[in-house]
Amino acid sequence: MTTIDWPRGFRAVAANIGIKDDTPDFSAVIGDAGTTSVAAFTNSRFAGCSVLISREHAATGRARGVVTISKNSNVATGEEGERNAREVLEAVAHATGLDVHELLIGSTGVIGRQYPMDRVRAFLQSLPKRRFDASVHDVAVAMMTTDTVPKVAHRRVGDATIVGVAKGVGMIEPDMATLLTWLFTDAQLDLSTLDHTFRNALERTFNSLSIDGDTSTSDSAALFASGLAGPVDRDEFAEALHEVCLDLTLQLARDGEGATKLLEVVVDGARNVELAKTVAKSIVNSPLVKTAVHGADPNWGRVAMAVGKVEDDSIDPAKTVIRLGGIEAYPRAIDDETLDALTAAMQSDHVVIHVTLGDGPGAATVYGCDLSRDYVAINADYTT
Amino acid sequence: MTTIDWPRGFRAVAANIGIKDDTPDFSAVIGDAGTTSVAAFTNSRFAGCSVLISREHAATGRARGVVTISKNSNVATGEEGERNAREVLEAVAHATGLDVHELLIGSTGVIGRQYPMDRVRAFLQSLPKRRFDASVHDVAVAMMTTDTVPKVAHRRVGDATIVGVAKGVGMIEPDMATLLTWLFTDAQLDLSTLDHTFRNALERTFNSLSIDGDTSTSDSAALFASGLAGPVDRDEFAEALHEVCLDLTLQLARDGEGATKLLEVVVDGARNVELAKTVAKSIVNSPLVKTAVHGADPNWGRVAMAVGKVEDDSIDPAKTVIRLGGIEAYPRAIDDETLDALTAAMQSDHVVIHVTLGDGPGAATVYGCDLSRDYVAINADYTT
Repeated sequence: MTTIDWPRGFRAVAANIGIKDDTPDFSAVIGDAGTTSVAAFTNSRFAGCSVLISREHAATGRARGVVTISKNSNVATGEEGERNAREVLEAVAHATGLDVHELLIGSTGVIGRQYPMDRVRAFLQSLPKRRFDASVHDVAVAMMTTDTVPKVAHRRVGDATIVGVAKGVGMIEPDMATLLTWLFTDAQLDLSTLDHTFRNALERTFNSLSIDGDTSTSDSAALFASGLAGPVDRDEFAEALHEVCLDLTLQLARDGEGATKLLEVVVDGARNVELAKTVAKSIVNSPLVKTAVHGADPNWGRVAMAVGKVEDDSIDPAKTVIRLGGIEAYPRAIDDETLDALTAAMQSDHVVIHVTLGDGPGAATVYGCDLSRDYVAINADYTT
Repeated sequence: MTTIDWPRGFRAVAANIGIKDDTPDFSAVIGDAGTTSVAAFTNSRFAGCSVLISREHAATGRARGVVTISKNSNVATGEEGERNAREVLEAVAHATGLDVHELLIGSTGVIGRQYPMDRVRAFLQSLPKRRFDASVHDVAVAMMTTDTVPKVAHRRVGDATIVGVAKGVGMIEPDMATLLTWLFTDAQLDLSTLDHTFRNALERTFNSLSIDGDTSTSDSAALFASGLAGPVDRDEFAEALHEVCLDLTLQLARDGEGATKLLEVVVDGARNVELAKTVAKSIVNSPLVKTAVHGADPNWGRVAMAVGKVEDDSIDPAKTVIRLGGIEAYPRAIDDETLDALTAAMQSDHVVIHVTLGDGPGAATVYGCDLSRDYVAINADYTT
């Protein structure tokens, strides 16, 4: 494994603080003074207190550090949970010399349980003496819950780098998987460019990932920029950021609980981008499509069904073309040879479904995975 | 099994015509002259030609017979498929003395294949000589595809009866299950009352059934009234029709592919009925909730997640109460005794999830089933 360095101006600590067991469950990444940031959070009405606090702190663009606690999401824990989250942030701020409002907090894990504050406090008291020498890999590991592998991605852009860490098994792990993504760069960009570029990348990557249509109460993403590498080309930065996010997204999709295949759905020729994305999500979330992908069944009829259930007058079977792995399945009449080729395409561990609506310039790509017996086993046998 | 008679003024034929194998695959139910009807069809943009033809014939309210062909949905079969459907209807009209526009046609089964017209024509030529003496049960059996049991329900209202037959495994059988529901009554009601009552019953029953959120290209429902029993009380009729539809809906839910449990989700206290139904459908369609129901896990956190992902400002965790089997799971603190009671509630073969939003008068109930390994097995191992 290549060692990935933090971009200039960032340092980190990772540790076990006894949230649930003896695996790493705490991390903090701190940017130098002058670091700016942009963030996005779940739209869930049941958002946890970590999200509520972080949303408030992120609003200024001056947050420059992020604390992550895994194995306990601190969701539905009431006022006590919120006091605990604030106490954690205050202790980290004290140990690092930051103002508490400069810190975000991300949480993931079981809901409805309080942090074991005795153990947490014992650790926090030791924090001022600790060295902030954790690697990117260490932080990614400390964020994991039921992820089977840590997720890290990085790209170079001019003299700067972008490093991303993420956790999540795409909303499909027991007790609601959470997507946490922290991105760090030493590129220097004004806040509005940073924000625009970040949201654009999110929309085309993490927000295009659907494992089962379920949405976590704790999803959070943020991009921190120290500026220490100086200015970079905006377009190159946007491209590199997109690549980092896409890399992480594909790692998340492949690590989906029970997933055996990556599913990529491309819809183009739509009236507009929104419709393209709606149709693509209808396909990628359809249990009938997902089981067909799992079973390597070139069942284009299920794709047609998933397209057809989007109620939009512009969708017309007479103008629609469905391709599996690049091979036209509809409307052509399918002979045995084509059926064999379609079946082979479905046997890939990266299945691409391409639907052309033939009606306009709108296009979108979304990612997901197949639906396996293991998904059911993992989620049905889990016990609260 | 109690024999259920057709309401006065209806007669039927059921047979095997060799669509796929030697099981019953054809039926026609014919109402006497003067029969009126109302109908509803799938909103799918990929609706099959049977739906397109029936929608046209149903528009007048004068349709009085319905032909059903199972084992082949005649979807995505182009102009040849449409010609074949019209040929079938013309032959049935000829044999029964009806005008072709008085007939609806419902189809269900594999898509993308033409009817075996040689065999179909041979049967249709024999039709004028056949006795129309098929029972309600015979027709229900001839409609089945992968249904494991025929679905029949009936209620008395005054001197009249309402008889319903349905097929479907709730959108979850291989190659897109189709919901076909035909209702017959000898009650006398004006067309607008019939229409209003029918749509109201559909909305609260079949349209409240979600197995996996997938929507068939062939869903069709119709209510035929011969009027031969004379007028009935409107409210009593509405109540009886609702009961017949609910009875069939629950039979469909229980027969869902791989289903082991009936899931009933009640949402009340919503800002309005639409929101109540949206929240209820979010819960009943959530794979994480469905697997928890399958595994008898009282995982109220997944219910909270499914509520929270409905983006509506009126949803407030502080006002929300979640009950499983009548027992409060949120926001109360759960002790071991309560957890045992909640687990027991989840072990029922009829699990009721009740969410109160505490914000208004809107209420809705929806029905579904659990998500089992068998669902995946059936749908993944199926080969086109």
